[in-house]
Amino acid sequence: MLNRFRLHQSEEVDLSSFDPEETGGIESKDQIRAEYEDLQERLKELQDKLYAGKSHAVLIIFQGMDCSGKDGVIKKVLANLNPQGFRAESFKKPTADEAAHDFLWRTHKVMPAKGYMAAFNRSYYEDVLITRVHGLISDEEADRRLDHIRHFEALLLDNHVVIIKIFLHISPEFQLGKIRERLESPEKLWKFDMSDLQERRYWEEYRKAYEVALARSAKKRSPWYVVPANKRWFRDYLVLRIIVEELEALPLQYPTPEIDLAGLFDDRNDRRPEA
Amino acid sequence: MLNRFRLHQSEEVDLSSFDPEETGGIESKDQIRAEYEDLQERLKELQDKLYAGKSHAVLIIFQGMDCSGKDGVIKKVLANLNPQGFRAESFKKPTADEAAHDFLWRTHKVMPAKGYMAAFNRSYYEDVLITRVHGLISDEEADRRLDHIRHFEALLLDNHVVIIKIFLHISPEFQLGKIRERLESPEKLWKFDMSDLQERRYWEEYRKAYEVALARSAKKRSPWYVVPANKRWFRDYLVLRIIVEELEALPLQYPTPEIDLAGLFDDRNDRRPEA
Repeated sequence: MLNRFRLHQSEEVDLSSFDPEETGGIESKDQIRAEYEDLQERLKELQDKLYAGKSHAVLIIFQGMDCSGKDGVIKKVLANLNPQGFRAESFKKPTADEAAHDFLWRTHKVMPAKGYMAAFNRSYYEDVLITRVHGLISDEEADRRLDHIRHFEALLLDNHVVIIKIFLHISPEFQLGKIRERLESPEKLWKFDMSDLQERRYWEEYRKAYEVALARSAKKRSPWYVVPANKRWFRDYLVLRIIVEELEALPLQYPTPEIDLAGLFDDRNDRRPEA
Repeated sequence: MLNRFRLHQSEEVDLSSFDPEETGGIESKDQIRAEYEDLQERLKELQDKLYAGKSHAVLIIFQGMDCSGKDGVIKKVLANLNPQGFRAESFKKPTADEAAHDFLWRTHKVMPAKGYMAAFNRSYYEDVLITRVHGLISDEEADRRLDHIRHFEALLLDNHVVIIKIFLHISPEFQLGKIRERLESPEKLWKFDMSDLQERRYWEEYRKAYEVALARSAKKRSPWYVVPANKRWFRDYLVLRIIVEELEALPLQYPTPEIDLAGLFDDRNDRRPEA
């Protein structure tokens, strides 16, 4: 089932061929409730093995238009993980120090070590999206940055970092509804920003910038997933399933101890303190 | 003069064609004393402009066999810099956290920002040298790492990081003399390590690994300099001159203030506090 949502080695990406309303033939949340719980359990076990084995690192990148649900999916799908082995990183407007370095510096610094998982809420992909839409960089510069991204991800892959890239796909109408919700709800008003309405005007430019970025960076070893996100319950289910299936494909194992367990509790080792 | 010591776009490097005793036709330290002092002054001015302008960053990489004088050259040539805009970074055996990341992680983290200079005492090049000599990585892995290094340096260059790569070239006889000095001098004994003598046995393997690394990573925009280092005074002079000439080739300038300076001290602005 995941194949339909996976992009790898794409020549061209046409986001209009993906329906943001789609739910993969599943009619309602009730229908997958039991499977969802099972997936949650499997994810916890996988994280445990990952942490014990220290053979791989896992990087999950979330990209998408404003209101596509990047915060929500991290909160709902990844909240049950052991925080000792998991971190969520959010990348906003670069600080002065970040802007004085190459564009991969701030994300590389917080890359997960082997044994660890990280979720990136936005990422180095912003540096070929918002910058391009607003003409802060030329198309040539964007091209070079996409090359740098490709090489950077090759470096990570060589170091056994699993890269799961998720594009949360919504429609402009859905976005408008979400902005209205923010304005009307006291618990959501804090998330409203004038830029939500301003950036909306660039919807088409963002779509095109995303299509180029996805086409240029979707690789067999690091595909992109286009996740329909108008239906939040399907978004959560699909993201969870992608992560679980990606991790189950890895040769994760608990390491075998290097000590001789057989004699561990014999008289020599298990001596009680002298009275 | 620097051309003789510069490698760029080399197909092959044969270190035996460089004489570690050579002094570029200069007979003694006295002959260049005045020029050396002048170079020191110019370097300070260049750093000042670099710091003010924030248009470029400068990375100086020092590599070389044990006892080639990496510590010494940093101490002697770079000690006069303004420490607020300069940092020396030393890379020893990776920590557990460093080893759990890709091999470029620990150096990328401490990359100088625009306006800053950094000297690396050893660098990511160690990851294709000591590891290769001791069979910790295969030749294929070393090849892939050299590709990653090439791409990484291209990323830095695109971000206006100037990369000055210096290989301090000594002879095995000179090294032995230096090891003996360490053993005999109370102020140098602390630097002696059994590995100095052990690693010496791999001289030929190191030489070959260096030749491959230099040939593969010497580029027009980021050349290597092979600096003869048996004569310490010539090493210092040449390194200083390389750095000054590289920086003088940059369009460094003091930024012009964005405020109107003409009216700065007129009555409106320069009001004394009311009595």
